[in-house]
Amino acid sequence: MNHLEALVEELGDRVVTDAERMEKYRWDRANDPDAGVPLAVVRAGSTEDVQAAMRFAAAHGVPVVPRGAGSGLSGGASAVPGCLVLSTERMTEIEVDPVTRTAVVQPGLTNAQVKAAAAEHDLWYPPDPSSFEICSIGGNIATNAGGLCCVKYGVTTDYVLGLTVVLADGTAVQLGGARLKDVAGLSLTKLFVGSEGTLGIITEIVLRLIPRQRPPATLVAVFATLDDATNSVLAITRRLRPSMLEFMDRPTIHAVEDMTKMGLDREAAAMLVIQSDEPAGHAATECELIASLCEENNATEVFATDDPDEGEAFVAARRNAIPAVERTGTLLLEDVGVPVPRLGALVNGTADISAKREVTIAVIAHAGDGNTHPLIVFDPSDPDMAERARTAYGEVMELAMSLGGTITGEHGVGRLKRPWLADYLGPDVLALNQKIKDALDPQGILNPGSVF
Amino acid sequence: MNHLEALVEELGDRVVTDAERMEKYRWDRANDPDAGVPLAVVRAGSTEDVQAAMRFAAAHGVPVVPRGAGSGLSGGASAVPGCLVLSTERMTEIEVDPVTRTAVVQPGLTNAQVKAAAAEHDLWYPPDPSSFEICSIGGNIATNAGGLCCVKYGVTTDYVLGLTVVLADGTAVQLGGARLKDVAGLSLTKLFVGSEGTLGIITEIVLRLIPRQRPPATLVAVFATLDDATNSVLAITRRLRPSMLEFMDRPTIHAVEDMTKMGLDREAAAMLVIQSDEPAGHAATECELIASLCEENNATEVFATDDPDEGEAFVAARRNAIPAVERTGTLLLEDVGVPVPRLGALVNGTADISAKREVTIAVIAHAGDGNTHPLIVFDPSDPDMAERARTAYGEVMELAMSLGGTITGEHGVGRLKRPWLADYLGPDVLALNQKIKDALDPQGILNPGSVF
Ligand SMILES: Cc1cc2nc3c(=O)[nH]c(=O)nc-3n(C[C@H](O)[C@H](O)[C@H](O)COP(=O)(O)OP(=O)(O)OC[C@H]3O[C@@H](n4cnc5c(N)ncnc54)[C@H](O)[C@@H]3O)c2cc1C
Ligand SMILES: Cc1cc2nc3c(=O)[nH]c(=O)nc-3n(C[C@H](O)[C@H](O)[C@H](O)COP(=O)(O)OP(=O)(O)OC[C@H]3O[C@@H](n4cnc5c(N)ncnc54)[C@H](O)[C@@H]3O)c2cc1C
Repeated sequence: MNHLEALVEELGDRVVTDAERMEKYRWDRANDPDAGVPLAVVRAGSTEDVQAAMRFAAAHGVPVVPRGAGSGLSGGASAVPGCLVLSTERMTEIEVDPVTRTAVVQPGLTNAQVKAAAAEHDLWYPPDPSSFEICSIGGNIATNAGGLCCVKYGVTTDYVLGLTVVLADGTAVQLGGARLKDVAGLSLTKLFVGSEGTLGIITEIVLRLIPRQRPPATLVAVFATLDDATNSVLAITRRLRPSMLEFMDRPTIHAVEDMTKMGLDREAAAMLVIQSDEPAGHAATECELIASLCEENNATEVFATDDPDEGEAFVAARRNAIPAVERTGTLLLEDVGVPVPRLGALVNGTADISAKREVTIAVIAHAGDGNTHPLIVFDPSDPDMAERARTAYGEVMELAMSLGGTITGEHGVGRLKRPWLADYLGPDVLALNQKIKDALDPQGILNPGSVF
Repeated sequence: MNHLEALVEELGDRVVTDAERMEKYRWDRANDPDAGVPLAVVRAGSTEDVQAAMRFAAAHGVPVVPRGAGSGLSGGASAVPGCLVLSTERMTEIEVDPVTRTAVVQPGLTNAQVKAAAAEHDLWYPPDPSSFEICSIGGNIATNAGGLCCVKYGVTTDYVLGLTVVLADGTAVQLGGARLKDVAGLSLTKLFVGSEGTLGIITEIVLRLIPRQRPPATLVAVFATLDDATNSVLAITRRLRPSMLEFMDRPTIHAVEDMTKMGLDREAAAMLVIQSDEPAGHAATECELIASLCEENNATEVFATDDPDEGEAFVAARRNAIPAVERTGTLLLEDVGVPVPRLGALVNGTADISAKREVTIAVIAHAGDGNTHPLIVFDPSDPDMAERARTAYGEVMELAMSLGGTITGEHGVGRLKRPWLADYLGPDVLALNQKIKDALDPQGILNPGSVF
């Protein structure tokens, strides 16, 4: 550990080497049992700190694992042996400019903190992963996070105007800025969005904000069959543009009801939670139309409310689905996406896999954009079941690919999905990815084993 | 020209070598007097044709200049000596899928044709460069084109879900697809958007569409000083989100009035053309608010209409500003952008440069996003004036940079702005651009001299 001294001299107590204190920096929410033990954790306070760490890493060929809040579900932030874990948790400054409707943000803030700072100026940062209270904005940029409002408002990359990035050799570059339009040079800002820490470390972000969302009206529809639910989704997206269109199947409903006792219908095969944020008057009209489309598709119950708090209770139920299902066992968390018309085939095919492999698969979905999260539940103390769960995990991805879909809609490839990436991309696109990786990180020290 | 035979054998009469027929493929709308004479023009009909041309070019080290409709204003599509001009004009297929709200489009269609095909399904492709009737969608993707509705609806990249790209060695890759969310691998789709033909040739595009725009209400406001106009812009963007917010100064108003005789106010220092596409009722409210903000900032006249045809006449006036000013002399067309609060400084500074260099500079602007087009008018038969115009051209870019702005908001760097790119990006970001260029086009045959 000798050569660490130079870094400690430069960064002082921002470098953590105590084994116990390092423990919590080893894992993200994928709980990779193979997570390594880091050489040190750097709790950077500034871009300069990150540069110092990267220069040290480059000089000594030490791998670096960038880390936001560790809420990732693909193992992208789990430590590799002898690495520096580069944590951004202390970088939490934000400045909102209401005139340009932009915010300059450090990566360590949570998504919720960014939203709150924007709201002080009557502005809104739309991307809303269910984890918004516990994930960092830097992690959101690094994974191009999605969420519930994407169906109308797009994903993280649509709100990123500029980035400061520390490259593999420690150089810091400023890309883009508080300008809505800038086409001078390649679109590098967008290249770093979703790069999962494999091309550089994001130390500052310029976000585009929009006016505060109008209070949404909420509609909950319950169905006796999966087909009725997914057909309703298609009927809705064909004509309307709700600001949320979420799906939960029966195992999910049961898990949420067990946790919340809010009175969800345990007989239902599936449930949709839908919102409209059109202006007053128009939202009610949109909700009526949506209700009638659900009824045409045999909804057994439709409940509508324009009371924001009442609506929020249902949205919170959907948002808490992962923790609720997690209480029933260990999860392998899928994140496959298909073109919306294939949603039914994906949901039914997943049910078939669940039956065949005899593991519970609870399905939640950002249904409006075809992005589903089959949650594969297993008991890790039952090796046979664990094996069947892993088989099902792969089969769900293969199913999605066979339906023209992707192996990851929003969580990222990380370490968990890397074995399927080559199959999904094919050799030519994989080679293209690799060319860019090699050009920007020739030593391969940025998050090795993740994605590539 | 011997080695061309192999290509002619493969592509037949899609290869044009007749000097007269090649003439119109030498220039884009930047009218670069130094445009070279191509070896041949390839009028590709398919991705395979483009691959054949690229393989030929790679084998013989022949430069390739991709070309859409040649409406570009930065010289990006002007020929270099001995190149293949790769024209996409014959690739004009389109398929719209109303259920996924996507379109699969070949690059040779005009933007207007894409809009029309989407409209048949009550859908809308928002990006709307003023040249929408004469520019290709492929060129729009290659330049990340902007337009009038960007202020509310974003730029081209926000609507691109997938691309088929032919790389420098002739390999064709499919990136992304008809999925709203896909984070598997690097964000390569977005990297190719705005790459101006320097990284690959775009042969197919998957576009995201949104529901048809509501008929907008239009407001025209006239001002006696530039400051009153730009202050109004700030007052509006601080509170509201119009779907269009365009600016024209006096020289522009005169040129348009000379051409159209529509009765514009020749005494005005500047004029704003503003639209709101909020739902019925709300648009009128938004327009009233905008009108009162303009009046607070000393508008000498405010005219509002919710008749779409009447509104369109004013928008057309703005859209025809470039051709109108072009009738008064030869143009050097600027495209600088600043953060919106600096718009006033940019407009006033440009007027100062006009006075100092004794050349007319007509200013139009996508004011809501700080993107201005100072049109520098000169007489090419007057060498001294031409020299002063060129000086002013550089000075406007330097002014924009000094205000935290960009040298090109939407037209691209091309060949015309390349001399300023290094200054704007700085050495580190330029090196990063170059690394990616070298990784993807090691022979440097893709649009050499443009951007890089
Ligand atoms: C209950 C629950 C619900 C969730 N719901 C959603 C959802 O709806 N939508 C969604 O998209 N995700 C969801 N997630 C996943 C997760 O919250 C997101 O992926 C989030 O963006 C990760 O942020 P983080 O700060 O926790 O990143 P981490 O887990 O710390 O890191 C994620 C990846 O980004 C890299 N990284 C982090 N910070 C940086 C940086 N500054 N520079 C470069 N690379 C960096 C890491 O190396 C890693 O590869 C959910 C997770 C949980 C636990
Ligand atoms: C009157 C007028 C008004 C305009 N208004 C606007 C405006 O409001 N907003 C705006 O953004 N632009 C505007 N422009 C500029 C121009 O129309 C845009 O840049 C447009 O996107 C260019 O499209 P094109 O098909 O003409 O491309 P071209 O001029 O043919 O090419 C432009 C660049 O893209 C590359 N390219 C073209 N096709 C491909 C392809 N398939 N694959 C890879 N590279 C390719 C070329 O090599 C070149 O570098 C205007 C132009 C005019 C003449």
